[in-house]
Order: sequence, then structure tokens, then C-alpha cells
Amino acid sequence: VTWLELPPDSLFGPANLPYGVFEAGGRDGGRRVGVRVGDSVLDLAAVLDDPVFAEPSLNAFMAQGRARWRAVRARITDLLTDGRARKNVELALRPLSAVRLHLPFEVGDYVDFYASENHATNVGRLFRPGGEPLTPNWKHLPIGYHGRSGTVVVSGTPVTRPRGQRRGETAPTFGPSQRLDFEAEVGFVIGVGSPLGVPVPASEFADHVFGVFLVNDWSARDIQSWETVPLGPFLAKSFATSVSPWIVPLEALAPAQVRPPPQDPQPLPYLAGPGHTGFDLALEVRLNGQVVSRPPFATMYWTPAQMLAHMTVNGASTRTGDFYASGTVSGPDRDQRGCLLELSWGGAEPLKLPDGSVRSFLEDGDEVTITATAPAADGGRIGFGEVTGRILPAG
Amino acid sequence: VTWLELPPDSLFGPANLPYGVFEAGGRDGGRRVGVRVGDSVLDLAAVLDDPVFAEPSLNAFMAQGRARWRAVRARITDLLTDGRARKNVELALRPLSAVRLHLPFEVGDYVDFYASENHATNVGRLFRPGGEPLTPNWKHLPIGYHGRSGTVVVSGTPVTRPRGQRRGETAPTFGPSQRLDFEAEVGFVIGVGSPLGVPVPASEFADHVFGVFLVNDWSARDIQSWETVPLGPFLAKSFATSVSPWIVPLEALAPAQVRPPPQDPQPLPYLAGPGHTGFDLALEVRLNGQVVSRPPFATMYWTPAQMLAHMTVNGASTRTGDFYASGTVSGPDRDQRGCLLELSWGGAEPLKLPDGSVRSFLEDGDEVTITATAPAADGGRIGFGEVTGRILPAG
Repeated sequence: VTWLELPPDSLFGPANLPYGVFEAGGRDGGRRVGVRVGDSVLDLAAVLDDPVFAEPSLNAFMAQGRARWRAVRARITDLLTDGRARKNVELALRPLSAVRLHLPFEVGDYVDFYASENHATNVGRLFRPGGEPLTPNWKHLPIGYHGRSGTVVVSGTPVTRPRGQRRGETAPTFGPSQRLDFEAEVGFVIGVGSPLGVPVPASEFADHVFGVFLVNDWSARDIQSWETVPLGPFLAKSFATSVSPWIVPLEALAPAQVRPPPQDPQPLPYLAGPGHTGFDLALEVRLNGQVVSRPPFATMYWTPAQMLAHMTVNGASTRTGDFYASGTVSGPDRDQRGCLLELSWGGAEPLKLPDGSVRSFLEDGDEVTITATAPAADGGRIGFGEVTGRILPAG
Repeated sequence: VTWLELPPDSLFGPANLPYGVFEAGGRDGGRRVGVRVGDSVLDLAAVLDDPVFAEPSLNAFMAQGRARWRAVRARITDLLTDGRARKNVELALRPLSAVRLHLPFEVGDYVDFYASENHATNVGRLFRPGGEPLTPNWKHLPIGYHGRSGTVVVSGTPVTRPRGQRRGETAPTFGPSQRLDFEAEVGFVIGVGSPLGVPVPASEFADHVFGVFLVNDWSARDIQSWETVPLGPFLAKSFATSVSPWIVPLEALAPAQVRPPPQDPQPLPYLAGPGHTGFDLALEVRLNGQVVSRPPFATMYWTPAQMLAHMTVNGASTRTGDFYASGTVSGPDRDQRGCLLELSWGGAEPLKLPDGSVRSFLEDGDEVTITATAPAADGGRIGFGEVTGRILPAG
């Protein structure tokens, strides 16, 4: 039992212990690794005698591997339950309000999947009306593509509305995107990489993936629809991708494992295996403070272990700090759709918000916040924190 | 006039001076920056008193900017013309045969374009027979997508044939790619990055791009054709991308500037500007030592400055070490096509090689080597070295 005095419904108790990178400022020095406990961050370099936590990113720690991740988590749990450690630990706790959170890891490659059947079906209906909503390959492999790593930003970073080309009557027009959107997604960061030529089986998912976080894959739908054939999304997505600052360790999500939806047809053997599990994460999307969607991650057709197995089946290597995201999380219900494109049905059915405002796509000044929780072992829930961002007008 | 005793037709005389990263091994220590002179590499850390050249990549030097690139090039030129420096410089020359060449820079993001009209037209005819060969957007913007940075390898690295899903009669099949291909491309590396939200005008191309090199964007055509709709190429390309070890400074290519092909329709203003120039690079592709193609880079529809302007027009930032490639370089003639897909017309017209062998796609053991030269100021030519790789059987 912890000596921490947290409210019983805290999403950041000892069952969670997500890692991040914080900066206390002043005499307290530069960026280093912390663990979120309640509304504080525990300065790991101060309580554990290991320079890996004095690094400005999680990469060095993530590269140490699963046995070490377990050992450090057990050690932190000890510190939070051993009354004799209390005084020392309390000296190393900083209130969240007094620190600045940074990008938690140095990003290598970023792959974005398209793993929600509800999302892909809705988008197929909107973009290819009259045709089959899902492409013939969709149920055989998790569709994915590479995103831009250099424009991954931490939650809170403002997002400037991108300019670009849109389809026009006779020639394309150019200007600020008129169909700016969010996409509520879940991200998975590689801790231990894999060498070139060696695929990672789905069963080894937990040996490679360090943890889980939230992603907002901002998307300019008008730029996307004009540029995307034949080589896929490019400038419609590359202007910014926001991530939440806390990485929830995979170990904390063991109680959240659920059976994923049945897959029919049966996927090829390399996509099967014991690591093939779903996760019962409950996402929530707020627009200017008002809930507009509650996407259920448990409904995702392809699982994170399958995504990793697919991403490497061609022999592609992975590195510490590579991450992949699930693609927009959308459930079967209307209020479970993970982007405005679906929520407003391409603008045909604008979304009415509780405060009386109406949205088909994002307006300047709009703030989008994605949060999530998952079941914890003690019957309570753990939290992911949030990924938030406000839209600035095109510069 | 240089004191170097090089053959008059050397491609690596004082008009070139490309940068790379080499390792001499033994007592001579680890990776550091060198300049190729004839068939030797000049150890820059030994002759210029600057720790930036003792780094294991070009990134730190590239980040110093154009004025510094010019100054260092001028200094090296001085050393190679000043007879008094000869003895010292000769002590710092290592024969190429005695060093190992490494990836010349740490790769940030990798974007691959699709900028050859001949290539895009041929591919359109092959993949969408009966339809318009070019998509409606093609002449309005340089189509591009993000590739995988973590699998960029230096010339000489063997390439293992990837496994993956291919389209089947009723269900996809799985196994080693049966349509493995090369793509002869030209790459451009960012020296000085640009901040988020600030597009780089075409006219500022030479302030950001440090230099030019050769790229082989290995492609598995069967994997590609099955996975590519709707989000573009992914595993068909992500298993390996090979790059040549020498980065030819943009300054050395001033004499290679040519007027690019006319663009009709006139592109949007952000794609115009004084930096919009073509480069007269003559590529050559050899398969097992036999020339199979001579792609002319001067025929590219979109220029490198336009690619950079497009890539950043949405506000995407760039970083030192980001690079972008042109896409397959194909000229109008049959023997100027930059990939086997075009050379064998999708396998319908297998390529006959001088040694009597026949190829539609690459076989295990095949070696592909791409070289290039460009006009130099003195009426001679400068070389890019080569990017080469041999196909290993699927593991």
C-alpha cells in the first residue's frame, strides 16, 4: 500500500507510473526523466542513482530493455510504498504546475496505420461514394504509411493552419486549408530496436514496445484529397503531429488487455501469435472544452502487435524512438467517431456543440484535447493525460 | 593550378571535392569527415584545425551554413594549389582502398518525390492501362511521400530480398518478392534546417541544401501494387534505400545548372523563383557490370528547388540531415529508363543483357550500380562515385 495521499479516483496512482521528460527550470537544471505521480512529477535522477534518467529524452532508458523496465518500475513502486523512503521521495516530487513537459523521446521513424474498420469504412464511403468502402487489401494487412518525424510536437504546442493546394474548378487553388481536422489516435513507441533483415513476430511485441501514448494526427482534408493519389498523404499531415507527454508503460496496461474483434478472413500466419491482443482504452475528444466523441480503442480491427509484425515483415529494422500510431480510432456509433471528417460527414452534417457553436472543420482559435483512460488492476482506472493543441491562423 | 598529380580525366579533381565519412581503422581511429581527391580521401580533421571534421557524420559541418561551406571549400582548394602545403596534405591522404566509407550523414526525415514526367507516365500506363497516365494533380505539384529513414544504408550494403503479401487469385499470397526492382534517383540533403511554420522559398534552395548524391530506392513491385491503395507505398520500399557515400557540394554543380523542361500549366507562384533550375547530371545504371540505362537528370519536370518549396509550403520544418530524393530518373528514350519496371515494361518485354542473360526483375546475386557525372567549370566532368548493392536471397 502506498504512502501517497492521492484521491481514490486518481488516474496517476501506483498502478500507472507513466514516464515523461520535464524541465523544472531555474537552479534545478535542464530536461530529465520523471514519472507522473498524482499531480506531481517524481524526479527520477534524484531518487535513483542512474545517469540514464538525467538524459533529456527517454531513449537511453527505453533502449535498456524489458527486464530493466520491469526492475525500474518495481523499484519506483517500492519507493512509493516504503514509508522509510517517503521523505526522500517527497523532496524529489515537483508539482506539475511548476515544470514544463517536453517531447518524451527523440523520434526516429513515425508510421501511421489505418487500423479502425469503422474509420476506414466511413472514409471509404465519403471519398469513394458508390464503391466498396474498404479497399480489397484492407482486411488482409494493416494499411500504413510513413509520416514526418521532424514535425512531431508535444501536447500544448500551437498548430498553425497550413497553406496548400486544393482541388479547383479548372486549376487548383492555393491558400489556408479550409477543412482542417484532428484525428484521435494511440501511439506505440519502440524501446528495443530490431536489426535489418529480422522481422519482429507479433508474439515479441512486449519485448520491443516500451509504452503507449495519445496522438493527434492533424489533417488538412482539402490538401489531402487533392494530393493523395497516387502516393498517399503528404503535406496534408506533415505540418504537425501532436503527442501526449506521458508514456504509459506496457506493463501498466496488462489489465486493459481485451480480445480484439474477430478477424475474417483469417489473416496470414505472420499476423497471428500470442501478442495479438486488443487494449480497452477509452478515448475522449473535447473541442473547446466540450466532449465531441468517445472513441473506444477496443474496437480496433488490427492490434498493435499485428502492426509491428507487419511493419517489419519485409525485414525493415526498427530503432529506439521509432513510433507507430493506430490511425484514427472510431467506434461504430456516431458519437464514437475520431475525426471531424466523420463526425460532420464530410461537412454535410455539421456538428452542433453544447455551447451553440457549429463545426464541420476546425476554426482558428479552436482547441482540441484528447484524453484516455484504461482499467487498472485494482478495479480503478489509469490515465494517459492529454494531448492538446490550439489552431493558430495561417501565418 | 593544383599540385595534385591526377589523370586529366579524373572525376575527383579540385572542381569536385565531395565530402564523406570514412574510417581508416587501426591506430587511425574512428569515423570522421573526409574529402575525396582522386582515388584518395583527405582527412580533414588532420589538415584543418576544427573538431567539426572529427565528427562521425557530416551533420555538424552541414549545420554551419553556406558561408562556412564556401570558406571550407576555398580553404581546401588553397591547400591543393599551394605547393608549401603539399607535404602536410599528402600525409593526410589515405588511399580509398585502405578506408571504409560510412553513411555520410545522420538521416532525419526522408522524402521521396516522383518528379520525372517520363517515369510517371510510364508507370501510369503500366498500372492504370486505358486511363490517363498522369493523375490530374501531377503537373500542379511535385508528388511526394515520406520514406523510412532507419533503413537508409550506404553503398555496398547487401540488400536482402523482402518477403511480403502479393495480390492472389482469391486471397493474397505471401513470400519473397518476385518483382524486385531498383530505382535510379538523385538525393538532396538539408544542411541548414528551417523552423516550423516557415516555408522555404524556391529561391533559398542553395541556402538550405548542402549537396547532392545518388540514391537507389529499391522497390518490390508486387508488394507495392497490393498495398499501395489508398495510403501509398510502405513495405514495398521500406526494407532498404541505398545512398552513395560522397556528397557533392552544390557549389561544385554550378556549371551543371541547366534550364529545366518547360512547365505547362504554369505552376503556382510558390513553385517559381530564381532557384528553380535543372541540373545536367548524366546517370548510368549497370546490372552485373553491364550498362542497362543512362537516365538524364536534366529531363526532370520538377526541379530540386521546387521540391523543397513544396515540401515546406505547409509550414513543415526541416532539419540538418533531412533529405529528399527526386524519384526515378527516366528520360524519353527506352534506354534512359531508371527502373526495371519500365525497362522490361512490367515484365512484358524482358531486358536482354550483353552477356546473354535476361531480366524482367532482379534475381538473387544481382548487383546494381548507379553512377553519375556532371559538367565541371574547366570543361571536364566531375563524378558522384557510385551507389551499389547486391541482392541476397530472402532470409
